[in-house]
Amino acid sequence: MIDILHRVGIASAPENVYAALTTQRGLSGWWTGEVKGEGGVGDAVHFQFGERGFFDMKVLQAEPGERLLWEAIDGPTEWIGTQLSWDLRREGDYTIVLFKHMGWKEPVEFMHHCSTKWAVFLLSLKELVETGKGRPFPDDVKIDDWN
Amino acid sequence: MIDILHRVGIASAPENVYAALTTQRGLSGWWTGEVKGEGGVGDAVHFQFGERGFFDMKVLQAEPGERLLWEAIDGPTEWIGTQLSWDLRREGDYTIVLFKHMGWKEPVEFMHHCSTKWAVFLLSLKELVETGKGRPFPDDVKIDDWN
Repeated sequence: MIDILHRVGIASAPENVYAALTTQRGLSGWWTGEVKGEGGVGDAVHFQFGERGFFDMKVLQAEPGERLLWEAIDGPTEWIGTQLSWDLRREGDYTIVLFKHMGWKEPVEFMHHCSTKWAVFLLSLKELVETGKGRPFPDDVKIDDWN
Repeated sequence: MIDILHRVGIASAPENVYAALTTQRGLSGWWTGEVKGEGGVGDAVHFQFGERGFFDMKVLQAEPGERLLWEAIDGPTEWIGTQLSWDLRREGDYTIVLFKHMGWKEPVEFMHHCSTKWAVFLLSLKELVETGKGRPFPDDVKIDDWN
């Protein structure tokens, strides 16, 4: 099991978090300003990060307010075939988000980078849903020489 | 292998990053204001987070400017016996920090939380070394209902 795991709590209802993960408006508010596609089952969504690169995700599962499962179908070699799950549940005033980026072949240095960067983007998602404004690329927090 | 992995790049020399990981003044500037002990081999260092809890680390390896290895000897049950490594190297204007928190028994929800929280504290370390001011507990970025 070579997975990236994260947990954030967002002070809002699960439906609002789910909307930020399944609409072009939501996705472009926390991950990258350049998104093509939305998040219904079977959809492919394209996330472009300027000249740095892109990720193409196929939506495998989408259970409103509860769970999303994506598969990376194009982008960096290390990502292709990996799966990304988002599990949401209400806990008091929070929606708890359990995030997993699963199935890395090797714990390469790029995986270390992506792990830290996922935390940054999950906190951007939290900010977007709680305040209306996230920090999507290119305004994301830079963590290292790979950005 | 159930490990937390992270990578940050800090615009400063490896010696400065190493100092922030091996002196009471450094450690209290990015992780928690309440630190007892320093970071020489064989030392035990106590990190207190108010009433929320604590971690006791034994320093297993300390190679100046290059590598640290800690073992968690007391604190939350899930942490006891896990090891934490810090590998530093210079890359252009940056010191690249590869961080691993290794040997979790199970990928429990608390591990997801700690993974995100480690990213927050690594960015606090980066801020401390680059600007002179980090965000140690209790001024750390809160990520969920567990804080």
